[in-house]
Amino acid sequence: MTDLPELSVRRFYARQMHLLDDGDVTGWAQTFTETGSFASNAMPAAVAGRDAIAKAAGETTAALARDKLRRRHWIGMLAITAGDDDTVRVRSYALVIQTPIGGTPTVLASTTCDDLLVAHGDDWLVADRVIARDDLDGVSP
Amino acid sequence: MTDLPELSVRRFYARQMHLLDDGDVTGWAQTFTETGSFASNAMPAAVAGRDAIAKAAGETTAALARDKLRRRHWIGMLAITAGDDDTVRVRSYALVIQTPIGGTPTVLASTTCDDLLVAHGDDWLVADRVIARDDLDGVSP
Amino acid sequence: MTDLPELSVRRFYARQMHLLDDGDVTGWAQTFTETGSFASNAMPAAVAGRDAIAKAAGETTAALARDKLRRRHWIGMLAITAGDDDTVRVRSYALVIQTPIGGTPTVLASTTCDDLLVAHGDDWLVADRVIARDDLDGVSP
Repeated sequence: MTDLPELSVRRFYARQMHLLDDGDVTGWAQTFTETGSFASNAMPAAVAGRDAIAKAAGETTAALARDKLRRRHWIGMLAITAGDDDTVRVRSYALVIQTPIGGTPTVLASTTCDDLLVAHGDDWLVADRVIARDDLDGVSP
Repeated sequence: MTDLPELSVRRFYARQMHLLDDGDVTGWAQTFTETGSFASNAMPAAVAGRDAIAKAAGETTAALARDKLRRRHWIGMLAITAGDDDTVRVRSYALVIQTPIGGTPTVLASTTCDDLLVAHGDDWLVADRVIARDDLDGVSP
Repeated sequence: MTDLPELSVRRFYARQMHLLDDGDVTGWAQTFTETGSFASNAMPAAVAGRDAIAKAAGETTAALARDKLRRRHWIGMLAITAGDDDTVRVRSYALVIQTPIGGTPTVLASTTCDDLLVAHGDDWLVADRVIARDDLDGVSP
């Protein structure tokens, strides 16, 4: 694990979100562990494993392209807690900014993001992510 | 004071805003000094002291719960100036994102935030905060 | 070049955007190299050199003052790549938050920002900046 997780975790999130927003769904899936899990209170069930994560992101990416929409995911306000030797827990806020080509940006969603990250060299992988959208009641699956 | 105030100040702001947004008004008040002051050009007068700061935050928290609104405070674009041994001045931007449960997020406010922070172990406390909302003319009290 | 470019680059962006948003167009122009270039897919041609950069910013600043609008530029989600000894490339996201005095903040623009920064003491200067607004098709000039 890196000496300054604040910096490496931030660097990881920037890279991870650029991959997603650029539509590189294979690269995005590789930022999760093999058995990594992604849950959200907007989804009926958690998605687990890189293939399933890539498939879900691919469907969203295709829909955005079809509808001529661009999304930018901002992660910020990170509270990092060291776990055992090679893990950290990170609670953060996320904003999803959506812009139609030819249109006006909107804040599509404001969420919290609770991650369990595991060290991967001097970088990180997501083992478990739980997103809670502020506009939805109820907890993630 | 910490060697890398950029990191500890960011960590402080994340924790402080999580406390506020989670409605932990006692924890929030403890992030100010005993005589800490909070002023805003949206308020008729500054609020000083932890009890008064907790009371003001408690009223806001109760109103948000009643109206089924969630707020997220983002602090960013930090310009940090070292003061004497154990203080820093921080000028930052803040965004308040408000989401009605069942509704759509909005940018409720864009502000500047001018803080005087004093070291508290390897963490910080707010001795003086001045918020200036961009939509309001005039200076803080 | 600094040992921790993440910190010095962030510090640079905060200072640079405060200068712009405060209307200090001379100070803003000084954050570019003498021959620094600023291009955007919202502009017909790139602007090059400090005088031209100051002039363009001055026109925008005057229009905002006339129309009683305040802007805040947020730069985030930084991906930094070290170049040769004294340069870095930074891909980031930017949000422009605009607030009419007496009105409601809006997200005026969501963009990517691709910078070539050159070291300047322990600080940075922009040698080349390319902005791509998400709402516009096409590439920068």
